[in-house]
Amino acid sequence: MKQYAFGIDIGGTTVKCGFFKNDGTFVEKWEIPTRKDNGGDLILPDIADAIRERLEKHGVSMYDVEGIGVGVPGPVLDDGVVNGCVNLGWGVFNVAEKLSALLGGIRVVAGNDANVAALGEQWRGGGKGFKNVVMVTLGTGVGGGIIIGGRILPGGHGAAGEIGHMQMRKNETAVCGCGKKGCLEQYASATGIVRLAKLALADTTKPSSLRSLAEVTSKDIFDAAKTGDAMALKLVDTLGEMLGSALAHITAVVDPDVIVIGGGVSKAGQILLDAIVKHYRPAAFHACRDTEFKLAVLGNDAGMYGAVRMVLNG
Amino acid sequence: MKQYAFGIDIGGTTVKCGFFKNDGTFVEKWEIPTRKDNGGDLILPDIADAIRERLEKHGVSMYDVEGIGVGVPGPVLDDGVVNGCVNLGWGVFNVAEKLSALLGGIRVVAGNDANVAALGEQWRGGGKGFKNVVMVTLGTGVGGGIIIGGRILPGGHGAAGEIGHMQMRKNETAVCGCGKKGCLEQYASATGIVRLAKLALADTTKPSSLRSLAEVTSKDIFDAAKTGDAMALKLVDTLGEMLGSALAHITAVVDPDVIVIGGGVSKAGQILLDAIVKHYRPAAFHACRDTEFKLAVLGNDAGMYGAVRMVLNG
Repeated sequence: MKQYAFGIDIGGTTVKCGFFKNDGTFVEKWEIPTRKDNGGDLILPDIADAIRERLEKHGVSMYDVEGIGVGVPGPVLDDGVVNGCVNLGWGVFNVAEKLSALLGGIRVVAGNDANVAALGEQWRGGGKGFKNVVMVTLGTGVGGGIIIGGRILPGGHGAAGEIGHMQMRKNETAVCGCGKKGCLEQYASATGIVRLAKLALADTTKPSSLRSLAEVTSKDIFDAAKTGDAMALKLVDTLGEMLGSALAHITAVVDPDVIVIGGGVSKAGQILLDAIVKHYRPAAFHACRDTEFKLAVLGNDAGMYGAVRMVLNG
Repeated sequence: MKQYAFGIDIGGTTVKCGFFKNDGTFVEKWEIPTRKDNGGDLILPDIADAIRERLEKHGVSMYDVEGIGVGVPGPVLDDGVVNGCVNLGWGVFNVAEKLSALLGGIRVVAGNDANVAALGEQWRGGGKGFKNVVMVTLGTGVGGGIIIGGRILPGGHGAAGEIGHMQMRKNETAVCGCGKKGCLEQYASATGIVRLAKLALADTTKPSSLRSLAEVTSKDIFDAAKTGDAMALKLVDTLGEMLGSALAHITAVVDPDVIVIGGGVSKAGQILLDAIVKHYRPAAFHACRDTEFKLAVLGNDAGMYGAVRMVLNG
């Protein structure tokens, strides 16, 4: 194993770059802007430049680099082919091959960003010590990643772990971004719980501390729930019901050792876990009823950790 | 690779024994009764005797046997530990180690029977040519097996693929054998569709050819549906709705290349696939919407094929 490796997490606004020792500790981390001009054609050359520059700065040769792991915000097949990234303007091409060619043929491994973050949390975060991990990321949407035996499950179409679009309610009238109605992320994301809060505030005259806010955020809802606000508690319970039911389905399929909950909404902490677990346990298959729940711990670094893990994983 | 191997499928009534060449073709297959006396203590010695006897008959030495794969009707952990088989009277022990010790230390690999059958279908049956397969077995209950990269996904508690107990209806009043209410197998198994038929016959006065039968079977229902019987068509549609929704959840989690439908109910053929696919496609995540469906082809031999594949798989 060579001495160094890179873990790169490509987001819609910035690219998070991690320069790692092969023991998984950072030499340095930094960000560059994601330039989406020209259909995203500049993104990989920008990353290649950033890597070259950083190697020069530290006096490290490319020959001492084991490889580069890259997390990408879209479906990625087993061989590194990206199946379109709407946020970056990318179509279908082999991102691993292309970045490798820009850096003299160095080994590059690519994965979907949610899957890569799950690998990071399994390796160094909330799922540390467990081989089989389901990670759920509750942010603007609901993302997921499935780690089996310490490796990402990519799926036949790069879509494994796309749990945000499990259809949880058939009688929903609001349309999800994906075009379906009743998807998990319409209830269990930051956007989803705010949507439900607006409906509750508009459709009822029930008192709530949320009424005094000009703009309600998911943090406001959890904060209000922590003070005992009845409407906020109901909203948190609905999120828990949807996510708990979905996780009962998920564990009946892949039966992980642990479930890790991450993303911005997970900053709510124990009240969130309690709401999920309350609905999960009675719905779960008995062998999976006691599966552990953990909060993610790596925050925005999870993607860099997971990305570098892909090249340090043999 | 040695020249021969055994694939053994332990059922509640009989043990199906397959003596294979290492190219996966049968030398011979036969059955022995499953003796459940003494808490199932006789089952493994009976299998060991049957294997020794068969080797002697064919003049093959134990040294020419690559190993023995065993499918077991209960949860099996990665290392061969059986986590209780109610049907056999077995508690918790390492079935692989125990059978190996009875046969001079030969390599034994054990797996859950539904998972092992899924591996058989992936290797030589309806899932042939695909690496990532979800198999659903519609029999007395609903079983499932998940094959990832040509290998069984056992799960952290030996419960991966236990899709029969996904809770599909929260307002169900009837209790499933597992103690929950609204499990997939309450609707999508042979027992489930017959249960719904009895309810429909008792609760309505709608005409149906099913009314003339003393005892309705799932085959009767599919046969009546094929002749256009409205009540039977509705029952088949409900099965399709439940299974289609569950499979949409399942593909959002593991994103297989193909879904294989097997078990006794699958003998209904195309009408069953059509009913499932009708409800699956609109509920599925877009990347998985066109995932192929196939019927299983190996019937009762799937378990033996899958079992031997576990030892021929490296």
